[in-house]
Amino acid sequence: MSKLQGGFTLPGEAGYEELTLKLAKKWGADVIRDSDGTVLSDDILNAGYDIYSTICIIRDHNKWAKENKDKLQQTFLVTAPVTARGTSLKVDLMKDFFAEQFAVNDKPAAIKYWQVYDRTTGEELDRDLWSHEAGSSSVEIKEAIPYHRYTVSFLAYRIWEEISMYNHTTNHWDKEHLMQIDPRYPETREYLLSWMKNWCETHPATNVVRFTSMFYNFAWIWGSSVRNPHLFSDWASYDFTVSDIALDEFAKKYGYSLTAEDFVNGGKFHVTHMPGNDRKADWMAFTNEFVISFGKQLIDIVHEYGKKAYVFYDDSWVGVEPYNGRFEEFGFDGLIKCVFSGFEVRLCAGVPVKTHELRFHPYLFPVGLGGAPTFTEGGDPALDAKKYWIHVRRAMLRAKIDRIGLGGYLHLVEGFPDFVDYIEKISDEFRTIRDLHDAGKPYTVPVKVKVLTYWGRLRSWTLSGHFHETYMHDLIHINEALSGLPVDVEYISFDDVKKGALKDADLLINAGRAGSAWSGGDSWKDPEVLSLVTEWVDKGGVFLGVNEPSAVSGTDTCFALANILGVDKDLGDRVCHGHFNCEASKENWVSADYVGRTKKHVFITDEDTRVLKEIDGKPAITTHPFGKGRGIYMAGFEVNFVTMRMLLDLILEIAGDKEKLYITDNRNCECAFYPGSDTIIVINNSDSTQVTRVNTKAGVKEYKIAPYDTIIEKI
Amino acid sequence: MSKLQGGFTLPGEAGYEELTLKLAKKWGADVIRDSDGTVLSDDILNAGYDIYSTICIIRDHNKWAKENKDKLQQTFLVTAPVTARGTSLKVDLMKDFFAEQFAVNDKPAAIKYWQVYDRTTGEELDRDLWSHEAGSSSVEIKEAIPYHRYTVSFLAYRIWEEISMYNHTTNHWDKEHLMQIDPRYPETREYLLSWMKNWCETHPATNVVRFTSMFYNFAWIWGSSVRNPHLFSDWASYDFTVSDIALDEFAKKYGYSLTAEDFVNGGKFHVTHMPGNDRKADWMAFTNEFVISFGKQLIDIVHEYGKKAYVFYDDSWVGVEPYNGRFEEFGFDGLIKCVFSGFEVRLCAGVPVKTHELRFHPYLFPVGLGGAPTFTEGGDPALDAKKYWIHVRRAMLRAKIDRIGLGGYLHLVEGFPDFVDYIEKISDEFRTIRDLHDAGKPYTVPVKVKVLTYWGRLRSWTLSGHFHETYMHDLIHINEALSGLPVDVEYISFDDVKKGALKDADLLINAGRAGSAWSGGDSWKDPEVLSLVTEWVDKGGVFLGVNEPSAVSGTDTCFALANILGVDKDLGDRVCHGHFNCEASKENWVSADYVGRTKKHVFITDEDTRVLKEIDGKPAITTHPFGKGRGIYMAGFEVNFVTMRMLLDLILEIAGDKEKLYITDNRNCECAFYPGSDTIIVINNSDSTQVTRVNTKAGVKEYKIAPYDTIIEKI
Repeated sequence: MSKLQGGFTLPGEAGYEELTLKLAKKWGADVIRDSDGTVLSDDILNAGYDIYSTICIIRDHNKWAKENKDKLQQTFLVTAPVTARGTSLKVDLMKDFFAEQFAVNDKPAAIKYWQVYDRTTGEELDRDLWSHEAGSSSVEIKEAIPYHRYTVSFLAYRIWEEISMYNHTTNHWDKEHLMQIDPRYPETREYLLSWMKNWCETHPATNVVRFTSMFYNFAWIWGSSVRNPHLFSDWASYDFTVSDIALDEFAKKYGYSLTAEDFVNGGKFHVTHMPGNDRKADWMAFTNEFVISFGKQLIDIVHEYGKKAYVFYDDSWVGVEPYNGRFEEFGFDGLIKCVFSGFEVRLCAGVPVKTHELRFHPYLFPVGLGGAPTFTEGGDPALDAKKYWIHVRRAMLRAKIDRIGLGGYLHLVEGFPDFVDYIEKISDEFRTIRDLHDAGKPYTVPVKVKVLTYWGRLRSWTLSGHFHETYMHDLIHINEALSGLPVDVEYISFDDVKKGALKDADLLINAGRAGSAWSGGDSWKDPEVLSLVTEWVDKGGVFLGVNEPSAVSGTDTCFALANILGVDKDLGDRVCHGHFNCEASKENWVSADYVGRTKKHVFITDEDTRVLKEIDGKPAITTHPFGKGRGIYMAGFEVNFVTMRMLLDLILEIAGDKEKLYITDNRNCECAFYPGSDTIIVINNSDSTQVTRVNTKAGVKEYKIAPYDTIIEKI
Repeated sequence: MSKLQGGFTLPGEAGYEELTLKLAKKWGADVIRDSDGTVLSDDILNAGYDIYSTICIIRDHNKWAKENKDKLQQTFLVTAPVTARGTSLKVDLMKDFFAEQFAVNDKPAAIKYWQVYDRTTGEELDRDLWSHEAGSSSVEIKEAIPYHRYTVSFLAYRIWEEISMYNHTTNHWDKEHLMQIDPRYPETREYLLSWMKNWCETHPATNVVRFTSMFYNFAWIWGSSVRNPHLFSDWASYDFTVSDIALDEFAKKYGYSLTAEDFVNGGKFHVTHMPGNDRKADWMAFTNEFVISFGKQLIDIVHEYGKKAYVFYDDSWVGVEPYNGRFEEFGFDGLIKCVFSGFEVRLCAGVPVKTHELRFHPYLFPVGLGGAPTFTEGGDPALDAKKYWIHVRRAMLRAKIDRIGLGGYLHLVEGFPDFVDYIEKISDEFRTIRDLHDAGKPYTVPVKVKVLTYWGRLRSWTLSGHFHETYMHDLIHINEALSGLPVDVEYISFDDVKKGALKDADLLINAGRAGSAWSGGDSWKDPEVLSLVTEWVDKGGVFLGVNEPSAVSGTDTCFALANILGVDKDLGDRVCHGHFNCEASKENWVSADYVGRTKKHVFITDEDTRVLKEIDGKPAITTHPFGKGRGIYMAGFEVNFVTMRMLLDLILEIAGDKEKLYITDNRNCECAFYPGSDTIIVINNSDSTQVTRVNTKAGVKEYKIAPYDTIIEKI
């Protein structure tokens, strides 16, 4: 394969100019970037590479922030419930919270949004039943009912930017705490526009400005107890977008006021994993509108200076929403996503923007996530890179990525020549794959897969954060499996179902815990949705339900689609009922090696339900015919080579007599074919040499592939 | 110990007169009974023993039943939901049901109670949208909505009495099917009163008439599929009490009509394990009133003939309700309970009636429950008897039982002399224990235990059936443990709490799955209940919550008493929340040998929560101080020697500095003391010899006890 160049962003490092330029050449870099804590010297800036600089627009202004502490970002907090012993009660507002992160905002404009709740009755207290002495950090409740529980919800300034706080705390930094300013205030916006202009003026060498990201970080509330330091963290929540000024503007625009309770939700907050509601939807739209409108002004400045604007799809990304249909309004030139997993590759690739760039792991840091050694004694960064690569590569085969890159301290690679060589190898592979995509889409099996969740397209591929943050949800495992399969995948909502989204679907997946956004919650009580899915299955569709699919409560069945699935869950009111016995039969797509689980209280409801996998006398996987289609139930889905292949085999079975080419006969290997160039790629995801046969249009071909390796050839 | 006589009911058997009389003497019998399938000969009847005869008042009248098929008992049935493909739909009523058990009742008086539901919308169909052709076994639905699910609820006669059906089917009998007649009809009552008189006239030798039981069997609905033969079975449900005539009378009396849906509840029925509602409570009271009023007429006849009337606390016992405060109105002289477990002993002993009699296991049958050999080759009935005895004995130490007895075919004991000797031994022990109770109550530890459930006193000790039918509920395990502990136990409802029931409680137990009658369901949303329990704990009470105690949904916490317990359950909306870490500490009452479980999604909510048992990093048992009291959480409770003792040790700890005597220091042994006679009983529950020390008022005493054995001595 001829040496390819470009599409690679290298983290440069002053003091290591020679190394920087040597590796830029070896890895085919066309762009050199700075990183948090590194600077680029003139030698690097003048070496003919494009220069890429990171800015965090709301964090890098501590001087201004200190002069404008009333314009810091805020959040709603709610105290843990306090039990009244008598008829008066004093609630310490900050008792539960990390004092270095929050400061009570008790200005009149803010206090009007505070709320006190009797959590025993679930009712809000009249305002004249509680009082707060200005400057104090407590609320006094009058006429309390003895032995009822009370909470106080209040606005607090966030006085330490969370990403800075995390790095600070984790790495025992001893620097000034960075603060985040809120562009909701006209003064902040004015300041930032001027700052942005100045920045562009003073960074002539920079070709690409990377925004990290826009204005509002995902929610991350820290606590006061060492036994429970992180009280709440949700990658896609809007809690950190709130302020009294935003609430006032919202009320003006939408004609009704949101309350503290709309955010704190009895202390539960509104986690992304649960269905939203109309008020939350309004707030998200309101915030998105603001982030786009002011974000665009900043991006326009960058463009005016002839630079490109990229956005980092993490950290302060809240309100950016790359999947809500409005993202192109920002005018970004590119989007960068740091990836551990295949689903994150697809998450990046699916955004409507010109350049999709991935930041690979491992980062060039001495230790990795969880503190294990990487670029330090005992580390094996080449092996780490291989392990990440097998997740990322299979997804890159399916969807085009334009650029890749690394982050961190370049000099750390010096003791690890095998890592340096491996990055060269996979950079070349990346560029080959990218170019194959340029000649047209890869071959897909003729089965259209749709995934039905409360959020639909908005939360395509992702749930809320990285795999290791969301591993407890079946759907992230399914997304990860799907990310590398040769099949078209689309994420749809219940509204989409009503708008006809099932028309071209062959396999519909619904997976998650009862009541969650992934399972769908009360959306499954809509008769129109139920009729449409039922009719679609009756006419030949395959419904795959995992864990507690279509689960509702208060109706005759727990699974609203129990009639299709042939299984249901006993919520306790069927404990005296007989259940159909569990006779395991055999079906091709369920591997004999499958090690799955059963779901407590799930039982077979129908004579025709066939058990494809039985564990300890209980159904782990079942299938149930319904008209021309069927319902398939899996108690859980954990992604691994066996289940990835099982999902593919199910898809192949659904394809039926249709042509299905470019499938390996070894589940450790996968294959992609690019008709535009008649090129096949066969990959080995395992750590041992594999042999696989592949059915191609030119007949069956056999490949022997080294551990983790890639074969690319014309056929 | 001197030989005691009496209090023993022996199953006599014609053809084995010598054996009958020999064993009557050896076992100290004072009463000889017949059994199902045995008769007593004149030699036995005239031997000077009291004679005890069983009758099943609603089953022994097949001739009359055949002439009055419109007066058979009924039930509501509901079809499985059927999905409409077009706008009309025919539903086969009997498709799901056992044709030998049910016959559709489509008389006009019955059909007015039929209902058709659209289960997709949850709404009942107007009557003009469905039709039933008389005599057919289907319903036609017009203007169906395609792809909605429909059910038909209808009245059906039960044409085969269920206990007879079970014995028939299980033992492959080939006899006439017995039918059950319904005394709701005046003609049936007239017939039965005359039959009862005649029976008394023609059974002059009988001293005790045992009713098996009154009129209505527990619900037991059989299905048509061999994969799912028993569709529904609930020992305490009222489904088999219903009929069109009863419904008409109910409407007249209560001023509103019940519907089929009030019974079938979307196919779930109203299982005893779930909370009831006002309509169900009215129906239960209505039925109980009827069973008492007509039952009393039959009992009066028995009394007129100088005979005693006992009732069997099983089979057709529904509507009898020995624990609802009205039982004494029947005028029964005794109550018989067949027992496998300790809780059943307490269930019997707690009924307000003169004579409490237990029917012991094993029954004198060739095989026992589940088909294992008993009085046949391979059986060891003496060992079986020992194993049942250790459960029953410990409960008999705590509450007085007046009589014991056996059932079955006496001749079967002939090959098992060790069984014959063992029954002699335990009969003597029983009589000794009984007499000790006569001299006053046994010593109890000064801790009052109350168990809080939806049903309260009505379902004291029991849940719904035998242990092996309800083993999946934590509370039956707790009841079984409590049944033999030296402590006062009371079962209370949420209404009782509001009436002051906590005043004298030291330990309050709430145990069960969320939403169940045992956990309490929505009763935990009542602020008055919450305040009262909270105040009681604050002032020193100990709340022990097991599994999902005080669980509700739709509020800020899942466990309504999370503030007391210091743990809560994540219903999915706290998946992004931090939880206090799980540092195990040590507390006396938790045994190092405890092998328990954790509960998925249960997490620690409070800094002060101490983990007493941790399993795989999750809390299995915790304690949390609250005021002067505390909340204790156990993820589950499975009864065994370890947990029985742990519960006792918790109770002893709660007793604090108060005097606690007569406690063994070996958990395989238990002890009771009868102050009225200064007698101590020490028992060995294990299958090996044990040594234990006991703290008595006369100092510490040491006992060595043979396997399963009993030591009784004055101190």
